[in-house]
Amino acid sequence: MADAERAWQVTGLHHVAFAHDDAGVPDGLAGLLGLTCAHTESGPGFTERMLPAGEGYLQLLEATGPGVVQRFTGQRGAGLHHVAFAVSSLDAAVADLRARGVRLAGEAPRPGGGGSRIAFIHPAAAHGLLIELVEPPAP
Amino acid sequence: MADAERAWQVTGLHHVAFAHDDAGVPDGLAGLLGLTCAHTESGPGFTERMLPAGEGYLQLLEATGPGVVQRFTGQRGAGLHHVAFAVSSLDAAVADLRARGVRLAGEAPRPGGGGSRIAFIHPAAAHGLLIELVEPPAP
Repeated sequence: MADAERAWQVTGLHHVAFAHDDAGVPDGLAGLLGLTCAHTESGPGFTERMLPAGEGYLQLLEATGPGVVQRFTGQRGAGLHHVAFAVSSLDAAVADLRARGVRLAGEAPRPGGGGSRIAFIHPAAAHGLLIELVEPPAP
Repeated sequence: MADAERAWQVTGLHHVAFAHDDAGVPDGLAGLLGLTCAHTESGPGFTERMLPAGEGYLQLLEATGPGVVQRFTGQRGAGLHHVAFAVSSLDAAVADLRARGVRLAGEAPRPGGGGSRIAFIHPAAAHGLLIELVEPPAP
């Protein structure tokens, strides 16, 4: 499908998420790169930290109990977990992907961190890559 | 170290790299997300494709023969390989990291794709995360 025909577009690289279970990672990576943590939120079994890098973010997902992050780190240790793209319209993206039969992961759309709305494309529909789509909060 | 004391800063999230060995991945992910490939370059044992997403890129690393990409995909299949941050000065970053005893991977700095200059921080120095620093070409 040509871009002009789409009702939604990817507008940026929003964040890349690194999953870990070592409480020393946030200060370690922030110090290494000169980044600071701008937001911290808790999810089911994990703590999410957002470190701004220009207009994008390094997201650190710390496993704090049973859940998707701990399953990931338990299977393969610390590692890159997913990539998130900002989109022009999350509702249009979800409707288009559903119409094309693309498998989404979990409820879509759903609330994300910092007032955003998010949806995940299942890795089975994306060659093994877990992709998050993010609609940032209105300014 | 406070940011004001550093001779270099991270200025953006430059790209996230996905390693694969399936020639269908570039068209598959481009079609899924409405992205197009802007640059293709060959490296030792791999083909690198850059798909712009706003000011950042999704980088696809296709293993085409023996080398670091094929070792990665052979061990764990397709997956996120590294994250790259744009920096204000690569020479200052490399000098500072060396002075702090941070282990770099391979020659640093060295030429990257599209006229950029790059350096890699070894995962052993970054909690298991492979980090690339990129100085984009002067405009």
